[in-house]
Amino acid sequence: MPFSDYERVVLAHGGGGRVMQRLIRDLFVAAFGGAALERGHDGAVLRPRGPIAVTTDAFTVSPRTFPGGDLGSLAVHGTVNDLAMCGARPLALTASFILEEGLELRELATLVEHMAAAARSCGVEVVTGDTKVVERGKGDGVFITTTGVGELLVDPPPGPERLAPGDAIVVSGPIGEHGVAVLAAREGLSLEPPLVSDAGPVHAAALALVEACEVHCLRDPTRGGLASVLAELATASGSSMHIREADVPVRPAVADTCELLGLDPLYVACEGRFVAFVPAAQVDDALACLRRSGCEQAAHIGALGPASADPLVFAESALGGRRILDLLSSEQLPRIC
Amino acid sequence: MPFSDYERVVLAHGGGGRVMQRLIRDLFVAAFGGAALERGHDGAVLRPRGPIAVTTDAFTVSPRTFPGGDLGSLAVHGTVNDLAMCGARPLALTASFILEEGLELRELATLVEHMAAAARSCGVEVVTGDTKVVERGKGDGVFITTTGVGELLVDPPPGPERLAPGDAIVVSGPIGEHGVAVLAAREGLSLEPPLVSDAGPVHAAALALVEACEVHCLRDPTRGGLASVLAELATASGSSMHIREADVPVRPAVADTCELLGLDPLYVACEGRFVAFVPAAQVDDALACLRRSGCEQAAHIGALGPASADPLVFAESALGGRRILDLLSSEQLPRIC
Repeated sequence: MPFSDYERVVLAHGGGGRVMQRLIRDLFVAAFGGAALERGHDGAVLRPRGPIAVTTDAFTVSPRTFPGGDLGSLAVHGTVNDLAMCGARPLALTASFILEEGLELRELATLVEHMAAAARSCGVEVVTGDTKVVERGKGDGVFITTTGVGELLVDPPPGPERLAPGDAIVVSGPIGEHGVAVLAAREGLSLEPPLVSDAGPVHAAALALVEACEVHCLRDPTRGGLASVLAELATASGSSMHIREADVPVRPAVADTCELLGLDPLYVACEGRFVAFVPAAQVDDALACLRRSGCEQAAHIGALGPASADPLVFAESALGGRRILDLLSSEQLPRIC
Repeated sequence: MPFSDYERVVLAHGGGGRVMQRLIRDLFVAAFGGAALERGHDGAVLRPRGPIAVTTDAFTVSPRTFPGGDLGSLAVHGTVNDLAMCGARPLALTASFILEEGLELRELATLVEHMAAAARSCGVEVVTGDTKVVERGKGDGVFITTTGVGELLVDPPPGPERLAPGDAIVVSGPIGEHGVAVLAAREGLSLEPPLVSDAGPVHAAALALVEACEVHCLRDPTRGGLASVLAELATASGSSMHIREADVPVRPAVADTCELLGLDPLYVACEGRFVAFVPAAQVDDALACLRRSGCEQAAHIGALGPASADPLVFAESALGGRRILDLLSSEQLPRIC
């Protein structure tokens, strides 16, 4: 760790002078390594072998550390996962930091080290970046924006425009763990055992699926959870969707906490799960592939109906009741990513 | 303008629900248009024809509007310019917004419209993005991070590793206007006539130069100004640099304001200028090319000396004195980009 106790971010860390150069060299270049960064230019050169996907996300999670992850690892996994949802193998990331004057440099260093470790474990390099510093009270510690560039595995890639009536809906694992874990950390709820976020990379499983099946669409249910993603994609596809609530995997601890807090797990964010839409005839192959790829609790939860002028998402309860899963006005839980 | 007076950003604008969907549709998709955004997926597909450059920057300029530009146009031009400095023609931009609860939606709409206009005039499309909202007091209105993807015009591209002893140093126009204009706007200095920022796109001139000459390196002198860029590149190249201060173009209004405020124009940021390093034999061609490309005041300001164990930048004054231009500890003017 290149910083002593109590060293803090000052405006000069974003000032383009010696203090900023030292931060870049001792922290960012040291953690991320790589030839592209060491070149010391304002951009990086990549040589993709074909069409690419590009995706970007700002990360503002609060608190910055939660059971199962932190802002640093989330900023890598979130963008790697969005690339995977485009059917793309991650090739490179860029990272842009907005630091608030007064942030402890040790905390920043820990977040950056976790970013670097997450990037290494996903086989992707942070190739270029930027640092800005804003005055105390004009930010919130640190915000990180990452952009990912990936190579498409299939062309055309999975996307909302390829959804088709009859497609089976598969979810890669139990839902809602990220939102509930962040909420518990933020509100100081002491759950026993503590709920751990599902935050993590999904590219290996998602890309294995793309190679094994004809995947029409992939989407990670982050803000707004599974229900919001389905509602959005029902609109995009022009087909209603039908899911069986009893088939949607939810861990008992998540279900209990949601009940206690009055939350609907179908609307709670995940950061390490995805939904896949595949032709009905391939659903067994898809489930087998996901289970081989570490998604032991992957489940077939429903299907797209025929085209509809007013596409909705219907959830059938275990008792045979039926409700409509509409977009909420807002997220139940702000700043979970 | 899709918003009425006094409508403001609320947390729900980042919540993944209906309120966020409406903001994306009515503001971002409406302003940026384009097939990629309308696809409604979390990423965009690009089909570059060869090697690409990638660059990212967070924009936090304060105040958000200044004579000659605003946060929106700056967020496009800054990244387009960084791509050009890599010798790359801009292909696509991503845009990520961190909004503070309470920001007036009309101001956001104006910034986004200026971004869209800047992108159109640079021939580049905003293909994907992200929006987060933080609580009041945890941000500063709006921060924008843009990432650019561009196609290399030449391979290998210009870069610090190609700098060579004897290279001529050329600057594309008068320096320091951006920093001084932002400072004047922030401090409420009433200069008559008002100083206007040089903020703007440089890709047309820079890429014309790359096609006309053997350009070893390009760099835009933003934070820290011309002197800091030269100091950094002297270190990277392992050669000292020598410049003639009298040959560096500085408009009288900038020189006067700097003198009044105790600033050194060589350290004041530009956002619409660049420095080019070309073989000495090509300096006349380079100047002619720049002047044809709208850089009427382009100037040959110095050269790289032979390799040196302790590379420095020497500035020779009009009276024959000599001083060393070192990296400052910090920038003289925070938050100018």
